[in-house]
Amino acid sequence: MIETLTKPKLVSPVNGNAHASAAGSRSLYAELADSLQILIEQGTLRPGHRVPSVRIMSRQRDVSIATVLQAYTVLENRGYLEARPQSGYYVRPRPPSFAPEPRMAKPMAKPAYVGVNDLTAEVLEFAMKADYVPFGSACPHHSLFPTKKLARILGSVARRDPTLLGRSGMNTGFEPLTREIARRYLQAGVPISHDELLVTTGCTEALNLCLRAVTKPGDTIAIETPAYFGFLEIIQSLNLRALEIPTSSREGICLDELRDAIVANEVKAVMIMPNFQNPLGSLMPDEKKERLYDLLGEFDLPVIEDDIYGDTHFGDTRPKPLKAWDRDGRVMLCSSFGKTLAPGFHVGWTAPGRYLERVRRLKFTNTMGTPVVLQKTLAEFLRDGGYDHHLRSLRRAYHQHLHLFLRGMQKYFPEGTRYSRPQGGNFIWVEFPAKVDALRLRRDALKHKINTAPGNLFSVKDRYRHCLRISCSLPWSDAIEAALRTLGDLIKQQL
Amino acid sequence: MIETLTKPKLVSPVNGNAHASAAGSRSLYAELADSLQILIEQGTLRPGHRVPSVRIMSRQRDVSIATVLQAYTVLENRGYLEARPQSGYYVRPRPPSFAPEPRMAKPMAKPAYVGVNDLTAEVLEFAMKADYVPFGSACPHHSLFPTKKLARILGSVARRDPTLLGRSGMNTGFEPLTREIARRYLQAGVPISHDELLVTTGCTEALNLCLRAVTKPGDTIAIETPAYFGFLEIIQSLNLRALEIPTSSREGICLDELRDAIVANEVKAVMIMPNFQNPLGSLMPDEKKERLYDLLGEFDLPVIEDDIYGDTHFGDTRPKPLKAWDRDGRVMLCSSFGKTLAPGFHVGWTAPGRYLERVRRLKFTNTMGTPVVLQKTLAEFLRDGGYDHHLRSLRRAYHQHLHLFLRGMQKYFPEGTRYSRPQGGNFIWVEFPAKVDALRLRRDALKHKINTAPGNLFSVKDRYRHCLRISCSLPWSDAIEAALRTLGDLIKQQL
Repeated sequence: MIETLTKPKLVSPVNGNAHASAAGSRSLYAELADSLQILIEQGTLRPGHRVPSVRIMSRQRDVSIATVLQAYTVLENRGYLEARPQSGYYVRPRPPSFAPEPRMAKPMAKPAYVGVNDLTAEVLEFAMKADYVPFGSACPHHSLFPTKKLARILGSVARRDPTLLGRSGMNTGFEPLTREIARRYLQAGVPISHDELLVTTGCTEALNLCLRAVTKPGDTIAIETPAYFGFLEIIQSLNLRALEIPTSSREGICLDELRDAIVANEVKAVMIMPNFQNPLGSLMPDEKKERLYDLLGEFDLPVIEDDIYGDTHFGDTRPKPLKAWDRDGRVMLCSSFGKTLAPGFHVGWTAPGRYLERVRRLKFTNTMGTPVVLQKTLAEFLRDGGYDHHLRSLRRAYHQHLHLFLRGMQKYFPEGTRYSRPQGGNFIWVEFPAKVDALRLRRDALKHKINTAPGNLFSVKDRYRHCLRISCSLPWSDAIEAALRTLGDLIKQQL
Repeated sequence: MIETLTKPKLVSPVNGNAHASAAGSRSLYAELADSLQILIEQGTLRPGHRVPSVRIMSRQRDVSIATVLQAYTVLENRGYLEARPQSGYYVRPRPPSFAPEPRMAKPMAKPAYVGVNDLTAEVLEFAMKADYVPFGSACPHHSLFPTKKLARILGSVARRDPTLLGRSGMNTGFEPLTREIARRYLQAGVPISHDELLVTTGCTEALNLCLRAVTKPGDTIAIETPAYFGFLEIIQSLNLRALEIPTSSREGICLDELRDAIVANEVKAVMIMPNFQNPLGSLMPDEKKERLYDLLGEFDLPVIEDDIYGDTHFGDTRPKPLKAWDRDGRVMLCSSFGKTLAPGFHVGWTAPGRYLERVRRLKFTNTMGTPVVLQKTLAEFLRDGGYDHHLRSLRRAYHQHLHLFLRGMQKYFPEGTRYSRPQGGNFIWVEFPAKVDALRLRRDALKHKINTAPGNLFSVKDRYRHCLRISCSLPWSDAIEAALRTLGDLIKQQL
């Protein structure tokens, strides 16, 4: 994943247009320094490596030689680079010390009914308030999306065929859109046909329908822990029981623990996010995905895969969904355009494998159809709108936000705090020293107009009360930095 | 209801623009004759009444005197009017004999799990095929809606604020839209506030969420019989049991039978359509609505009210929803713009009374949000787009379609067939002699590219196999008439 970042075609974030508002407030050399620092921190540029010469870098990034020199000097000051006379700049042998990553929780493997408290609703409610710093919800900032272009296409689609607005319909997928989605999966190593896809009201409906297709109330579902609170809400609303399986912030759900849990309990399905898990950001390696698929095959268990962050990889290669290994239709792939293109459209999809007909029927009874005018707009954008180009700059922006947030937190949060190191997505999982109470922190932070998502939102039990999922959705700014400093001060008050 | 139709402001359907395609194929005098015949058949113009003079009618309808004279002559020939020398035209004392209305079914009052067969899916699938005559689905024809105007507003909304497309959000109601909806309900005698409303993905999601809020799997729901097959599909998908209560094609569900059923069974909720019930088209009188509300109050039972056809009344006054009598929040009102303005938007709503918070939470877990760009477009149309004007011509079109379909069926279907007489909506319930098999009729009709909805779709058991719901969604045309003739021939083959 990471190695591919060194390819010369990686251009500086300042050339991307997705986060122009962020770039506007920062100088070119600082941007360049930041992006190189990411490469060093992520291990793409390793200690002892020679960085590209000033001349080559200047050409690659399309900036002046003075700018490159200034950036290299900044990195030298920060301790990342050293200049060797007559030779160039090298990555310093001992990079600055990193904060450690979060520890993995080992919950008791007992299924439990989900009792989500009203906190989730509260966090989401505050996420809608424009005057609160949105560390609490993983909704990406609208400036990251090509909304003007989408608006033009939407207007054009409606004007060319207004009858779309007057046609009702039980359609479960506008074919030009499902063909585009299938084509992209093919490129990502998932050979599915357009008629295996159903279009849904966002990824949320897809997850609902898939769960309902393979369970009945009272059944037990294995999930990661910590898990996306949306999963927990859905599980609760369907009167299912959740069985939390330890999950590494690097490689995802633990297969041994999952096997033990399946053997000991009557698990009816598994619901996971192998790519950039929410909230950990973990990425399951390919060979582990293959083993996971085989493991579930032993028990003939269906798996609901949420791949909503799959396209937000920082590396060059899009990680394969688990669905890529699916031979007998047990993987129910769910996703949407909510994190990559048009959150306001609420258009998602599922490829539910052997459960296709059951899910299609449930889709009809649940919401009937999804507006064709929106589906057609997306289809046209995917076909002609430069989706790949957009995705590249979106990923650069996500990557940069994450990096800047991480650096900001390391600067202001107390020693001993642990941070996940996602390779995609737009949030970081933060583990404080055990005595920190994230709920108290939340209440204190609200007084400063900062919305946070305390760790216990992500568990069936009251786990992770000393943790926080920090959303890095906003372009970096002085206000964000100030909010992180405030949070840091509030945390230190608890120590 | 009906009396108000005599007001002079009722203009001829030929002046409406909603069904221009229909008008184009018919002459002015025939249109006028048809619209007057409706008034006579519906009892608005009663036997012995003098119809407006030729001169007055000519002015009212903005047609020539010759056209009026020709129309009156047609009605004289048809036996509806008689000319009295020196006095004018009068409605004939004995109107032409009407076909009888359908009989009410008296099902055994036992709750049953719903086993909807694949026929529903098949009927809906064929409803999407443009080359099949759509007698089977109640989707109104797109030409009935102001789609060009909506498209313009949609384009303008998107252009003015493209960020709407890039904002995700758990919004459960765009306030300018919920305010417009609440304002209209106020006019219809339902005093609700905008913050009691939740916007949903169509009426279908609203019904789902409301049912889920007040039941758990295995519970029993009282419904009308025959009932909208969508109700049955939803009930089945939620593993509920349906208790079918006899329902009159004129006045809706039978209160005595409902009371007996509630006493004898553990009914958890009632789900009904008091206004223009699908498929009967029945309209519950106000005093009966009040008694229904009181009856359910005795048992403290919630009632899910589907009012999707409430705005399609043929009379001048919009019938009140049951919600108008709600004093303690037990009525969960559900509706959408699917039959009146923009089926392609899939925007609906619910006012779930005392269950508001529970439904809101379920909405979040089910589909999260509804696209704001669509909600804003609807809000602007409702505010400035001439919605009332549109509704008037839509209702005239619905009324005329129904009338023409009824006449066509009476002409081509066998003697002894019974027809409902809806005062709103866009379908007619048809009861054939008992030996007719609507399933066989369906198979035969499909060979002639005619899609039908056999009666047994509308029942938990295999009832109503000799019935048909005929959708009158299409503007009248020679093709429609030919299809009705073909259906008639196929029915006669079974006798």
